[in-house]
This record gives sequence, structure tokens and C-alpha cells, in this order.
Amino acid sequence: MDWLEEALEAAGGDERLARQLRFVLELDRAKSVPRRTYITDGSRLESDGEHMWHVMLAGLLLAEHADEPVDPVRLALMLAVHDIVEIDAGDTFIYADADAQADKVVREKAAAERIFGLLPDDQRDTFSGLWEEFEARQTPLARMAAAIDRLLPLMMNRAVDARTWREHGIRAGQVYAVNSRIGEASSPLWSFAAAVLAAAERDGLLES
Amino acid sequence: MDWLEEALEAAGGDERLARQLRFVLELDRAKSVPRRTYITDGSRLESDGEHMWHVMLAGLLLAEHADEPVDPVRLALMLAVHDIVEIDAGDTFIYADADAQADKVVREKAAAERIFGLLPDDQRDTFSGLWEEFEARQTPLARMAAAIDRLLPLMMNRAVDARTWREHGIRAGQVYAVNSRIGEASSPLWSFAAAVLAAAERDGLLES
Repeated sequence: MDWLEEALEAAGGDERLARQLRFVLELDRAKSVPRRTYITDGSRLESDGEHMWHVMLAGLLLAEHADEPVDPVRLALMLAVHDIVEIDAGDTFIYADADAQADKVVREKAAAERIFGLLPDDQRDTFSGLWEEFEARQTPLARMAAAIDRLLPLMMNRAVDARTWREHGIRAGQVYAVNSRIGEASSPLWSFAAAVLAAAERDGLLES
Repeated sequence: MDWLEEALEAAGGDERLARQLRFVLELDRAKSVPRRTYITDGSRLESDGEHMWHVMLAGLLLAEHADEPVDPVRLALMLAVHDIVEIDAGDTFIYADADAQADKVVREKAAAERIFGLLPDDQRDTFSGLWEEFEARQTPLARMAAAIDRLLPLMMNRAVDARTWREHGIRAGQVYAVNSRIGEASSPLWSFAAAVLAAAERDGLLES
């Protein structure tokens, strides 16, 4: 953006500030990445930007329900950055086939290098570190983040009568396979999620 | 929501979890509150949910540019919650007249009581406290949050050739009056913002 570079130069040419502001402007593009989940008024698909905000606050509030203790603030920060790579890589549907899931890893790694690479090195390392820990799912924190990242779409989809599952022909077996990950991090959240799913099956919103 | 209450009851009736999940679902409505700023692809107005995510990360990254030291994480959390009240109160245009601005205070206070009141008391106090500190603008943290909250719309609006200013007939004097608040918190960010505005005037995007 010419106007951005011109203003940075006119303001003194601080390269650290320049890197930060280029990244901040780049973040706006996450608002143009649609997910498969509808916002609960049903008017349109949720954007990645909205999703990261929503799960970030949910993580802050629900961290105490993790089976292994996690820091609520670090959980919130992890969730606030976890889908930034989708600015380049796009949203991969959680019910996509194995080929699409495998390709996702390659695309997202390249995206992380380019996008987080816009930042000053120390901040790049902080953001990359949170994203890599999230993707690896080897820590209690990352498992809890994954649980929150599943729980909210499940609730939102139920709030619009399972529209995403119905539009994509998603069956109960697939939904349980994806969402049982919640139980790997939080027994109380999985109890709740399982109750939502059981009632959805009973009510004909989710086919066996 | 009947399905939510039913699942909470089936999962054991934990009232604390119930309050948290009702609030989390309520947050989704911030995605349906449009702001006056366009997302930078120009396709639609930004939602409150997207805005809170964007300023939250900007705060985390730019906190170091505050003239008085502020905690980056607390700044990020303040920005992540600062417009939740608009779920009930709606977005008040920063260039609205004095009557609309005065009415805003009354509407937002009632909104804060209802929405944050959904939470367990300790979490309600945390969220309300961040929001009240932000609104009062008496601390370095709150002033820096206000600066970030001005800087991003300014950048985004410039990225789409000042579309919001042009659509609403906003003049340079108004823009400087609103955005000079940035300079009350951060000299480097105001130097940058002032350079953006000066170039916009020169280029005919902002009328004197």
C-alpha cells in the first residue's frame, strides 16, 4: 500500500513500527475469509476474524473447565491468533476429506511464514509459537484451545437448527468423531456438548 | 434458547457453566452489529465482533508505543471487550451529534448491566471493570485503548479511499478533532496518523 509506506516514511521511518502496522493492516483480510458456520441470526457465514474473537473470549471464560490446568490468558491469546494463517490458506472444512486435510498442513505452514514474517522478529516468534503449539495439539493448553474451537461452532450450528450439517449432509458419526476431541480436554464441556448432540439426533436435526 | 437450557440440565445443571455458556452464545450477536467502517476488500461494513478482534491484536502489538507504560495483555483484553455493550446499544457513529453521544452513555450502561450480568459474579466484575475503565478514559491504559480504537478505523478507511468520510460528508476538522485523541496516548502513533491525514487532504480524499 503506497499510502501506508508514504505515511510511515513521513512519520520518521521507524522500521519496527512499519512492520507492526503492515501486519495489523494485513490482519483485516481475515474478515474476508468465510467459515462454514452461520452467525446465529442466520444472515451470513461467520468470518475468521469474528470466529477468533468469539473463541478468544470463550477461552478466557471457560479455561477453568479444563481437566488439566491451563492459563486462561494464554489460552485466549492462542485462540486469538489460531486461524490467521487462513488469510492465505483459506478455511478447510473440518469435515473435508483426508487429501484436503493433508494439503492444509502445507498451505498453512507457508502462510505462517509469510504472514507472521511481516512482524518484528520477537513478535513473529510469539505469534508463530502460539500457532505451532495450537497445531501440534501436544500440550493441555493446545488441547483445550481445540476443544473451544469445536464447542462454539457446535453451539452456533445448533442455534440455527443444524443448518451447516444439513447443507453438507454431515452425519452423526462424523459429528461425534470431530467433536469428541472436546472430551480430551474438558469433561464438563464434553458432557454438555454430548447432551446437545443427543438432543439434536432425537429431534431429527442430525442423521444417524 | 430451549436447546441450550435442556442440554445444560442434562449435563448436570452446573449453574456457573450455564451462566458462562449463555454469555458465550450471546456474544455471537456482536457479529450482527455493523460499524461505519468498511473491511478493506470493500465488500461490506465491518462487524463489532471483527473490530474487537482486530483492535485486540493491534493493542497487543502496539502497546510498546504508549507514552506511559501499559501492560500489553491487559490492553488487549480491554479492547477485546470494549464494544460488547453495542449488542444492545448499537454502534454510535464517532461523528454523531452531541445528543446521540449523550444518549449513548445511558444506553450502554443499561446494556453492560444486562449483558455482563449474564456471567458469574467474578467474571462479570472483570468484564465490567475493563469496560468501565475504557469508558472513563482516566488511565494510561484506557487512553491507549482509545488511541488504538481510533487508529485502526483511520487506516482501514484510508485503505478504501476514505469511503466512510466521503459517504457521510465528514470534513478534515472533524477527523482531526476525533483522531487527535491518538496523540494523548502515543506520540509515534499520532505522528503516523497525522501523516496519513495530511496526505489524504493533499490527495483530495478529505475536504477542509
